[in-house]
Amino acid sequence: MERILTQSLDKIAKQLAETPENNGMCHIRRRGEPLPSQEKVKEIVSLCRALIFPGFFGDSGVTQQNMRYHAGLNLERLSMLLIDQIVAGKCIESPCCQPLDVDSLTKDAIPLCDTFIRQLPELRRVLMTDVDATYKADPAALSIEEVIYCYPSILATSAYRVAHLLHTLDVPVIPRMITELAHSETGIDIHPAATIGESFTIDHGTGIVIGATCIIGDNVKIFQGVTLGAKSFKLDENNNPIKGIPRHPIIGNNVVIYANATILGRIHIGDGAIIGGNLWVTEDVAPGEKIVQAPAKENR
Amino acid sequence: MERILTQSLDKIAKQLAETPENNGMCHIRRRGEPLPSQEKVKEIVSLCRALIFPGFFGDSGVTQQNMRYHAGLNLERLSMLLIDQIVAGKCIESPCCQPLDVDSLTKDAIPLCDTFIRQLPELRRVLMTDVDATYKADPAALSIEEVIYCYPSILATSAYRVAHLLHTLDVPVIPRMITELAHSETGIDIHPAATIGESFTIDHGTGIVIGATCIIGDNVKIFQGVTLGAKSFKLDENNNPIKGIPRHPIIGNNVVIYANATILGRIHIGDGAIIGGNLWVTEDVAPGEKIVQAPAKENR
Amino acid sequence: MERILTQSLDKIAKQLAETPENNGMCHIRRRGEPLPSQEKVKEIVSLCRALIFPGFFGDSGVTQQNMRYHAGLNLERLSMLLIDQIVAGKCIESPCCQPLDVDSLTKDAIPLCDTFIRQLPELRRVLMTDVDATYKADPAALSIEEVIYCYPSILATSAYRVAHLLHTLDVPVIPRMITELAHSETGIDIHPAATIGESFTIDHGTGIVIGATCIIGDNVKIFQGVTLGAKSFKLDENNNPIKGIPRHPIIGNNVVIYANATILGRIHIGDGAIIGGNLWVTEDVAPGEKIVQAPAKENR
Amino acid sequence: MERILTQSLDKIAKQLAETPENNGMCHIRRRGEPLPSQEKVKEIVSLCRALIFPGFFGDSGVTQQNMRYHAGLNLERLSMLLIDQIVAGKCIESPCCQPLDVDSLTKDAIPLCDTFIRQLPELRRVLMTDVDATYKADPAALSIEEVIYCYPSILATSAYRVAHLLHTLDVPVIPRMITELAHSETGIDIHPAATIGESFTIDHGTGIVIGATCIIGDNVKIFQGVTLGAKSFKLDENNNPIKGIPRHPIIGNNVVIYANATILGRIHIGDGAIIGGNLWVTEDVAPGEKIVQAPAKENR
Amino acid sequence: MERILTQSLDKIAKQLAETPENNGMCHIRRRGEPLPSQEKVKEIVSLCRALIFPGFFGDSGVTQQNMRYHAGLNLERLSMLLIDQIVAGKCIESPCCQPLDVDSLTKDAIPLCDTFIRQLPELRRVLMTDVDATYKADPAALSIEEVIYCYPSILATSAYRVAHLLHTLDVPVIPRMITELAHSETGIDIHPAATIGESFTIDHGTGIVIGATCIIGDNVKIFQGVTLGAKSFKLDENNNPIKGIPRHPIIGNNVVIYANATILGRIHIGDGAIIGGNLWVTEDVAPGEKIVQAPAKENR
Amino acid sequence: MERILTQSLDKIAKQLAETPENNGMCHIRRRGEPLPSQEKVKEIVSLCRALIFPGFFGDSGVTQQNMRYHAGLNLERLSMLLIDQIVAGKCIESPCCQPLDVDSLTKDAIPLCDTFIRQLPELRRVLMTDVDATYKADPAALSIEEVIYCYPSILATSAYRVAHLLHTLDVPVIPRMITELAHSETGIDIHPAATIGESFTIDHGTGIVIGATCIIGDNVKIFQGVTLGAKSFKLDENNNPIKGIPRHPIIGNNVVIYANATILGRIHIGDGAIIGGNLWVTEDVAPGEKIVQAPAKENR
Repeated sequence: MERILTQSLDKIAKQLAETPENNGMCHIRRRGEPLPSQEKVKEIVSLCRALIFPGFFGDSGVTQQNMRYHAGLNLERLSMLLIDQIVAGKCIESPCCQPLDVDSLTKDAIPLCDTFIRQLPELRRVLMTDVDATYKADPAALSIEEVIYCYPSILATSAYRVAHLLHTLDVPVIPRMITELAHSETGIDIHPAATIGESFTIDHGTGIVIGATCIIGDNVKIFQGVTLGAKSFKLDENNNPIKGIPRHPIIGNNVVIYANATILGRIHIGDGAIIGGNLWVTEDVAPGEKIVQAPAKENR
Repeated sequence: MERILTQSLDKIAKQLAETPENNGMCHIRRRGEPLPSQEKVKEIVSLCRALIFPGFFGDSGVTQQNMRYHAGLNLERLSMLLIDQIVAGKCIESPCCQPLDVDSLTKDAIPLCDTFIRQLPELRRVLMTDVDATYKADPAALSIEEVIYCYPSILATSAYRVAHLLHTLDVPVIPRMITELAHSETGIDIHPAATIGESFTIDHGTGIVIGATCIIGDNVKIFQGVTLGAKSFKLDENNNPIKGIPRHPIIGNNVVIYANATILGRIHIGDGAIIGGNLWVTEDVAPGEKIVQAPAKENR
Repeated sequence: MERILTQSLDKIAKQLAETPENNGMCHIRRRGEPLPSQEKVKEIVSLCRALIFPGFFGDSGVTQQNMRYHAGLNLERLSMLLIDQIVAGKCIESPCCQPLDVDSLTKDAIPLCDTFIRQLPELRRVLMTDVDATYKADPAALSIEEVIYCYPSILATSAYRVAHLLHTLDVPVIPRMITELAHSETGIDIHPAATIGESFTIDHGTGIVIGATCIIGDNVKIFQGVTLGAKSFKLDENNNPIKGIPRHPIIGNNVVIYANATILGRIHIGDGAIIGGNLWVTEDVAPGEKIVQAPAKENR
Repeated sequence: MERILTQSLDKIAKQLAETPENNGMCHIRRRGEPLPSQEKVKEIVSLCRALIFPGFFGDSGVTQQNMRYHAGLNLERLSMLLIDQIVAGKCIESPCCQPLDVDSLTKDAIPLCDTFIRQLPELRRVLMTDVDATYKADPAALSIEEVIYCYPSILATSAYRVAHLLHTLDVPVIPRMITELAHSETGIDIHPAATIGESFTIDHGTGIVIGATCIIGDNVKIFQGVTLGAKSFKLDENNNPIKGIPRHPIIGNNVVIYANATILGRIHIGDGAIIGGNLWVTEDVAPGEKIVQAPAKENR
Repeated sequence: MERILTQSLDKIAKQLAETPENNGMCHIRRRGEPLPSQEKVKEIVSLCRALIFPGFFGDSGVTQQNMRYHAGLNLERLSMLLIDQIVAGKCIESPCCQPLDVDSLTKDAIPLCDTFIRQLPELRRVLMTDVDATYKADPAALSIEEVIYCYPSILATSAYRVAHLLHTLDVPVIPRMITELAHSETGIDIHPAATIGESFTIDHGTGIVIGATCIIGDNVKIFQGVTLGAKSFKLDENNNPIKGIPRHPIIGNNVVIYANATILGRIHIGDGAIIGGNLWVTEDVAPGEKIVQAPAKENR
Repeated sequence: MERILTQSLDKIAKQLAETPENNGMCHIRRRGEPLPSQEKVKEIVSLCRALIFPGFFGDSGVTQQNMRYHAGLNLERLSMLLIDQIVAGKCIESPCCQPLDVDSLTKDAIPLCDTFIRQLPELRRVLMTDVDATYKADPAALSIEEVIYCYPSILATSAYRVAHLLHTLDVPVIPRMITELAHSETGIDIHPAATIGESFTIDHGTGIVIGATCIIGDNVKIFQGVTLGAKSFKLDENNNPIKGIPRHPIIGNNVVIYANATILGRIHIGDGAIIGGNLWVTEDVAPGEKIVQAPAKENR
């Protein structure tokens, strides 16, 4: 390469490595402590799916005979990665100026991991209600197997349920990384802090947004493009949104929300309500109520 | 790791490997028969794209001289994978209680694969009409090459056309896995059972949904966020949707559907009709008709 | 495999390698010149992110001590790939009938690469304003680190800013490949030719479309499903859209555009305007104006 | 590349693919049947070593807890590969002109594999005598662990014992491929047909040759460069060596053979004999006898 | 890591990168020109073996039908690598102080590569004589296939014949790298400059040394441990050996040399001579002569 | 697979995982502490070679400009691996019954690693004397570059010098693993405890054995097949060899030892002595003495 380019490389490399913003923003390891890793978080999700749906995800050579070997090694690898990433999340969270005690963070992470592992069978039970509800709800679904293999909703819901469990254990950053991986895979964006009941189904999962303080009941069905979002944000004295205020809808049991509906604010959608497509809803909907858009059709 | 975690691992591994749901749901191989594999389905799609658009997809070292070598080896590998996955699809479809005859399933898969292979040149011809129409329709498209390299619509349409061909050969599960891969890549969700004519274009392909019983004519153009869906589902005696009923729109030739329009039910959109953006359409539209939303603009 | 399949393979391989469309469309290398490569473009984007956000992206072993080594090698690899892909873009652009002078194209690519490299520190500064604005704007964001690790908007915006810089250097095809990679990752489709100011934030980035001739001011916030598109295309004598005409909106500073709003045509949205969700906007909006949809709610 | 080279490529590729020797020598698959694979044979040996010496070879994450999972999956993978390679060996052995029944060859391979698997614990017991003897015999060996980790003799002896077991099951070609892999790793060439007792030790294993019809007792120690070979070959009417005649030495128990000794022909080295270095031995040596070279030392 | 170690890393990295010996010895690239690469040389040898013995080496999926595709792509890849490595060899050879013209070196390399490619069929013919002779000469060889799959002599001889061909084309360094790869695989060290006739066989190839100026006739058989070396070196005025003087033996046709014989100096071993094992030969041996060591056997 | 095989797998897996020898021999990790790893030891050697001979070994893209980046990252990776493997070696050495304190072992390993790193420049200086001597001594060596790229003696000597340095730091097991890797690559077996001076050369390195208590002066030249070994071992009361007694030769400066000479026992070979090929030497040789074998030549 030309002499001029070589000079740029040296100069810019130095500049990128030394600019004060960089040190100030603290986005590099101080003394070798673990950092959250997209690759490892991805593997955690894959291992959970392989443990919950053996044969569908993970090693395709799983048989009745070797399942317990696979389960054993997958669980062990999952624990190792999870402890590591829990610690990494805690490190990210800690203020820059303070020294980190990785050993003690690791000791704290072990019982969290243990609790997580013990919840996996229950997590599988709930996911099975999602699969079953999806199969029954979609006339295009030809078999339970097709649902598990092909439906993006299963990818998104399994990632959400794993992330939510970690969220309830107060693990920082990692839950959000998990749901964003699923968001990237599927276009379905469920915040890990949201609460979602059993038998949850998403049809044509694309462009779904479910906010952090949403509470969703059992047997709810959502179509593509639905937003369960915030209407506006309370601002603090610096004109910035105040964090942590309940600001997303509460959805009852047996609700159906059709494509591209936008439901905003801390409103209640009552049990059994049906929300038509493309609607913009910012007020409560009573139980059993059915609201739809007037079909706009106009020649010009 | 701590003693307590080790105990959990053993216990949970056993539980995950042995729970009755698991056996009941039958999602593992009984005696080593092939299972559908996301990785192999992905490779099938990649090989089809490499064969149809050599140089753009697949080995970037393709030249005029070595193209026939690449084509030969790619076709051979494609056949091997396809036969394997056709058999895997058939196995998934078969009831759990029944013994599988993998040899005979394989023998049946070979002529299906043969038919598929023989249709590849025709498939390429049709895809070329899509590419050409896309280039002409988009003022931002600077060259045919840019369209093939960069447009998500080409990824989605090529996957759909491959999947649809397999669907017409009655291959189970695999076609849907193929379109869902493209859905994940692009946000465009076309059911493999849909019928789509030549010179089909999608602009800014994101959040598109095209349902299983849609029939789309030639030279149709669709923008982001369009849904061609079902309005409601006929339910059976158990209150579940009845499978297989025509329930999605029929779109004529030369139709344009603008961003975020939602067209629902077994309605007809006539030849040359234009559907404006953000519309909610549940009734027939006459040929040549042009419908748009009244620009809502209101101060508060 | 059966005899009949073997015969098909030979015949179809020959057909796919020799059909005239193929030669005519010119989509293979003539004499070994480089072709744009999805893999290499992906690596270019990854290297830029690793240089701009060390530790968050790229090698997770980055420390205060080794950062300059990583920066040096990453910059060098980036330069090599970039020069290669700039040349590949130029080759794609050149007419088929004309012989290519790869050496002279390479010589021309070096100063372009040099300019690009020198802009990286400024590019980092601007991206930091995006990160900061995103953190402040979203009540669900718990830390700067969470924003960089988890927000798809950062993936999309970083790819756009890299692509736009290459676009301003007249590099063909590659900028679009870069933004389409981010589109696939995130569902956010920003054309590399668009102009976007500092402190730009996207919330729940899914289904965003920002067209080629858009001009966006500083401190603009956009929610999911927003389209900044063209209303209609001027056609030439062959009824094809004329390329290169300004056809997308101009957005002022401090504008907020809520979910699923569709803003079309070369209109002006004035400074400080607020556009409500699900709106269809095709006319100018005055500075400071706030427009919203009337909440449609109707029983049937 | 230059035009002239391109022409050569085409011409020579055709020539290499079609020359009659090639067809005549029959070294390609007729209809897709498996071929012996260096890679798979290598993996078979690695799996055997991992099963016999867990932790030393194979996955370094083996612990007391997960050993049975590793053992289960390794055994399963070993079986699959072994059945495949046994069939491949049988295919290679069968005459070219005859059609192959791969299914029936596979059915025959299963009990062979079963017998092999069942012998693994005994094989481990014998290898432990070799390890133990090696540790005791070498003053430079500091621990049992050092012997297993570092001594080429363990690599060679473990490969030989695996290969010999397959040889006694009449598996063709594969046993020899196994010992040649170890030959390449270590410079120790033991023919799989040789018979070797327990507590066998090789010091500085380099340049050792042990012929096909050798019979070696228990507790024998051999140094580098030793040959146990054939003196001359009986020729048939075509002047070619007659295959299968016993032609290598019989070595008793407790024999020591020092560096570079060459022992040729079907002679007997009696129990407890000691053969000095650099000797050329073609006649029987009595039990307990000790023969050495006169130290040649001469000024010139 | 501890502070003290970090300081060492920085200091030593700087020292290793800047010591004058390093610059003086000139063992780094001046301006990006290619360097010989062990990996690429290894792949060159693998491709040659795959082209000469398809099915035995290289892709194990070779069939009668796809052989020409494999041959085509393998030849093309071989050419690309070979041209690259020929240039790298020339660069290494050129004096440090002189600027390199990589383009012109590449132009010169193309006809060398072309000549090499054109010789491959003849190279295969000669190697087939080696295989055939080996099969006939060894009573332990059960089939031609076993010889090709398992005999280290075939690895060594094929590498030598490839390297010798490149040596005759005056390619520097690369031929020696090729034979040293085979040396490492097999323990057989044949200098690429040596001349070896057809039907050459090596039994138990371990510890063989064949020097640079050796000339070996047809149908020669050599056993393990044989050296065909130099007796002494003529020294120049600085007491260093003079390069390039014939100093190794000339071996006639049909000669057999048994294990561990050492034959030194520019002597002649006549046609049909037989050299016994462990002999030290520094004078001519007449045609047909048979010399052996007196079996030393002595009690002490 | 057949039912019978499945049963064997389960039974044998259990047996291999639980046999008492296994527990007794203690060859698995007790609580996750690191084990020596062939792969990591291999990488340690590769990194040392890349640091000592940049461009020849390791990344072939090294240039004058980027060398310090490569050196920095390679040194850092080397330190990390080395500390890990030093700890692993210490763990292996510690008695089974005793609990391990990995943290304190790691703390102890850091200064050892620091010392090792600081010796690298000196290690390079000494290796340069070996390279230089090799080039001068071999009339077939055409350039310094050829020596470094192609001579197995450089692989063996560089591995030995690295291993010896670790040996002098009392690191267990790892040094021997390093020299055995080189033994496998080259057939040259140098014990890490041996002491070897500068300007050491090995010609046609194959079948060389240099024992643990050898002491070799400067400027010594050794040919293939030479053994510097022990004559006999002192036995303890259990009839096992006593470890650690000096039992290998002391070689003076400027000695030449020709091919296949075997020198045994704690004897002295005086400065400038020349030992002829195939000799068996068990008594002192005076300085300057030249001993050779009488050329045995005899007709039969």
